[in-house]
Parts: sequence; C-alpha cells; structure tokens
Amino acid sequence: MADFDLHILGCGSALPTMRHLATSQIVNLRDKLYMIDCGEGTQVQMRRARIKFSRLNHIFISHLHGDHCFGLPGLISTLGMLGRRGPLFIHGPKEVEDYLRPVLNRFCAGLAFEVVFNSVDTRKHAPVMEDRSLKVWSIPLKHRIPTCGFLFEEKTEADHLIREMADFYQIPVSLRRAIKQGDDYVTPEGELIPHARLTRPSKPPKRYAYCSDTAFAPEIAPIIKGVDLLYHEATFIEADIARARQTAHSTAAQAALIARQADVKRLVIGHFSARYEDDDVLRREACGIFPGTILAREGLALQV
Amino acid sequence: MADFDLHILGCGSALPTMRHLATSQIVNLRDKLYMIDCGEGTQVQMRRARIKFSRLNHIFISHLHGDHCFGLPGLISTLGMLGRRGPLFIHGPKEVEDYLRPVLNRFCAGLAFEVVFNSVDTRKHAPVMEDRSLKVWSIPLKHRIPTCGFLFEEKTEADHLIREMADFYQIPVSLRRAIKQGDDYVTPEGELIPHARLTRPSKPPKRYAYCSDTAFAPEIAPIIKGVDLLYHEATFIEADIARARQTAHSTAAQAALIARQADVKRLVIGHFSARYEDDDVLRREACGIFPGTILAREGLALQV
Repeated sequence: MADFDLHILGCGSALPTMRHLATSQIVNLRDKLYMIDCGEGTQVQMRRARIKFSRLNHIFISHLHGDHCFGLPGLISTLGMLGRRGPLFIHGPKEVEDYLRPVLNRFCAGLAFEVVFNSVDTRKHAPVMEDRSLKVWSIPLKHRIPTCGFLFEEKTEADHLIREMADFYQIPVSLRRAIKQGDDYVTPEGELIPHARLTRPSKPPKRYAYCSDTAFAPEIAPIIKGVDLLYHEATFIEADIARARQTAHSTAAQAALIARQADVKRLVIGHFSARYEDDDVLRREACGIFPGTILAREGLALQV
Repeated sequence: MADFDLHILGCGSALPTMRHLATSQIVNLRDKLYMIDCGEGTQVQMRRARIKFSRLNHIFISHLHGDHCFGLPGLISTLGMLGRRGPLFIHGPKEVEDYLRPVLNRFCAGLAFEVVFNSVDTRKHAPVMEDRSLKVWSIPLKHRIPTCGFLFEEKTEADHLIREMADFYQIPVSLRRAIKQGDDYVTPEGELIPHARLTRPSKPPKRYAYCSDTAFAPEIAPIIKGVDLLYHEATFIEADIARARQTAHSTAAQAALIARQADVKRLVIGHFSARYEDDDVLRREACGIFPGTILAREGLALQV
C-alpha cells in the first residue's frame, strides 16, 4: 500500500451480523498505526488484516457505546501478552477512562506498559494529538452521548532543495535544513536568493476525516472541507429517516450531502444497520448525490 | 442434532489467533441453551453456528480471566437490542458480578430484562443450578484465580408405564404419574402390583463435564467419573510442562490421564496455546493415553 492508508476492520452498527462486525479502523501513515474505535473482535480482525500490533501507539475512541469500545480490554490484554513496553495512548471522551480504568485494574494488574488517557472535549474542534508525522483534530458530532469524529492531517514535509541550485550557489550544508523549511539564502557577496528559487514544494499533505456516529450535522462541513477521504456513517436509507432521527444517526443521502457540501475528494460510508440484507441500497442512495461513493467492508484498504 | 449436544464456539487460550478464538461453548439440551464461558467474539460465533439467542437463559462462567468473559458485555447488549424480556442468569465466582455490574450500569441502563447473578463457591463440588431438564454442579479446579468447572447432568426421566399393564389392571389415569415416578399399584381387591412390573426404565441420563482452566487435578476424577463426554483443557504438550505448571494449566497427557482415571466415555481437548502451529501434536499426545481423544475446533458440534 501507499504512505497513508485506511484499513476497515469493522463497519457494522450496534448489532453484529455475519456480514459486519463492530466498528474499528486502522490509519497507517508510513508504518505508524493509529486505531479509530475498537469494537468487540477488533484484535482478531487485526490479525486477519496482518496488521502489526507493535506498531500501534494511539487509539482514538469516538464515543462510549459498546460497539465502539468493547474490544479495548481484550486488545490491551493481548498487547501485554505480546510483551509491549511502551505507553499506549487512548484519546476520547473522559468517560472512556471511567469505563476502562477499573476493568484494566481488575484484569491487567501486571501490565508492563502504561495506558495513558487523553480526555477529548467532544464539543470542540481542537487538536487532540500531534507527532512528527501527523496532527489529529476532534470533530464535534451529534449523537445520543458525547461523541466526536477525528480529522487526521499529515504533516507538511519540508520543501525539497533543488540540487543544481545548491551546487551552483555552494550553499553550506549547515544552512540547507533552514532553507528547506523556508529561509532565503544570502551569498557571501550579500546577494539574497529567495527560498522559492532554491526549492521545490513537497507534495501537499493528505487529510482523512472519520465521522461516526452522528445525526445529520452540516455544520461540520467547514472542518472537513476538501479532505482527501471522508468516512461518514450511513446507518439507514432515507425511507428509514424517522429511525435515523430517533437514534441520532445519518442516512446514506445525508452522508453524501455532507461530502458534497464539504467538497471532499472521496467518500466511504459505513456503520450499516443490520436491517439491510444488501448494503448496495445504501451505496446507490449516496451515489445519487455524491457519485463514486465507496461502501466500507471488513478487510477493505483505501489509500487516503 | 440429538437431544443433548455440545457446540464449541471458541477453544483457544488467552491469545486469540486466526485459528482459535477465546473460550465459549453452548450446551443444547432439547433446544434449551446453556452457555459456558463467553470470551470476546462469542456473539458472532453464535451467529455463525446459527444458535438462537432467544433460547439462552443461563450462562456459566468458570473464572474471571478476560478470555473467558470479555464477550459478556457485547452479548448482553445484543440480547437487549433483540428485545429480550425474560431474566438472564449468570452463574460463576462472585467476582463476575463485581466486574460486570458496573459495566452493565454504564452501557445497558435501559435493559428490558434482568441479569441475575448466582455466586458459585469455586472451592466446592455443589449444585449450581437446576431446572426441569438439567442439574448443574460445580467442579473445583486449580488455577491462578478462583475457578470451577461445571458438570451438566440430564435429569432422569420418569419410567415409562407399560400400556398393556395399565390396561390390564385398569389403572386410573389419576394414579399413573405417581406410578411412573416409583409408586407401586394396589388393585381395588387389595393386590399389590410392584412398580417394576408395571414400568420400563427410561434411558439413563447423560452427563457432560467441562474442566477449564486448570492445573493437573486428579482429585476431580471421582466427580466426573464415567461422564459421557469430558471437555478438558490441554493448553500445552508435555515438552512445555514447566510453562504449564507456571501458568496453572494442563498438558494434553494430563488431560488424558484424568479422562482415563475417571473412566469417561469420550474426551475432547481444547484451550490450546497459540504456540502450536498444528494442534495435532496435542491430539497425538492425548491419544497415547486416552485413545480416540477429540480435538476441539470452532464450529464443532458433538453429541453428549
């Protein structure tokens, strides 16, 4: 796969079926893994997808419904048995820690690594986590309990220094890093060579947005504007919109409207209700509004 | 299948793999279902085995290690969504309630059925539960935390009244039930017709014993003496006996020794360590001591 991929481990809704499992995804950015939600069965799905447990350091939990977090105790136990030492970071509403801490105290008392909780304010669009490769932001969503989505933003690489220019001006090695990052160059004779003449821009950073679970929330469009890939829940079809409203979920048409309004590059829909024998009804409905909508399925991998 | 079956939903040990899932089994006695242990993924395995959620009323938990109970929150949530109304009984060490009650309070506040906990003293061989079809006993096991196995004993049906005898003596309908259950019959003339002349014994009751997790515990042999089917854990082979001792588990040879000593009719082994690429090493080792030993696998159904 490419530098920045999404792996769908589960894309069903609350009631698991033989077609779909509870929600979980892996974002793989240059072999660093970030998990989003962790429903029951996630660890077995990771094995099926041949995803390396040791490369996972951050888990993002959207909300505290069982189909998004009941896989955490088993996954954390397994990480312990596999000999993990480094800390594991769990980002999510503060209730995640309230639920998980007593369970870990009971079952994982001898864990050789630390589980660090980072409490996320689900009402705000704010930075959640940042490392050398990536910045993650919360996306406030509308569900029955505090819930947020997550926006994964690849960090801009420094511009590339054009070798011929570096040679021509005999730019000292000690200055090259700063020039890549935006400095101009002043020659020993005092001539200023602007940054833009010396460098080529790196490829634009990619962005992935995860929005589940949520009622129709067009107010998120500015936050996810133009992302390369949007995963949006589409639990129901428009014929069942009363049920969608009642349970604070979206229809496939609503997911597609959000995608169109935010002018995203690609849309993948998931969190399908168990009531639909054939998910293609959801895809067709979304495609009427956002052509090319992709249906999530367990095992699907997409380039961001 | 027959009147009294065992369905293996998961028979791996703590580390789930692509070959084996965490422990769970269903005992089906004339379409009444009894679950033993409930590891992560059990509810999906039930769907795969086409087992009816509505027929399940009793769950027996052997001990509070995650690979035997992490499937409970998801299963109970699902039963709620499927519209269950009747109580669900959970039998196991008292720690099961300590773990599960707060989780249910958090995730299943609106549950339309009651979850009733029955605390089992794992140090004793004693009755755990009884209904019209079945009596279940605890089997004290030797593990790192309080643990017991379970003995499922089909209830003896009443003897069959021989129609020709009933007609010959013109036995009143009102007395027939008592005669089937052991009474003699006294004719209006005062003649005593003994029970044994009037009836044919029903078929002998079947018994199934579940023993996992446990170190080698030959003291359980009298309890499981002559059972029709024994499931015994066999986490390791003899070459890894040091690891078996350290973790309070059994080897395949030890499981077979117990089976031979208790003179059981059939032995099925499970709870296999993830370290063995081919479980057949475990089967071969057990068969050297107890010929015909069966390897458990996900999806296996056995008549008791």
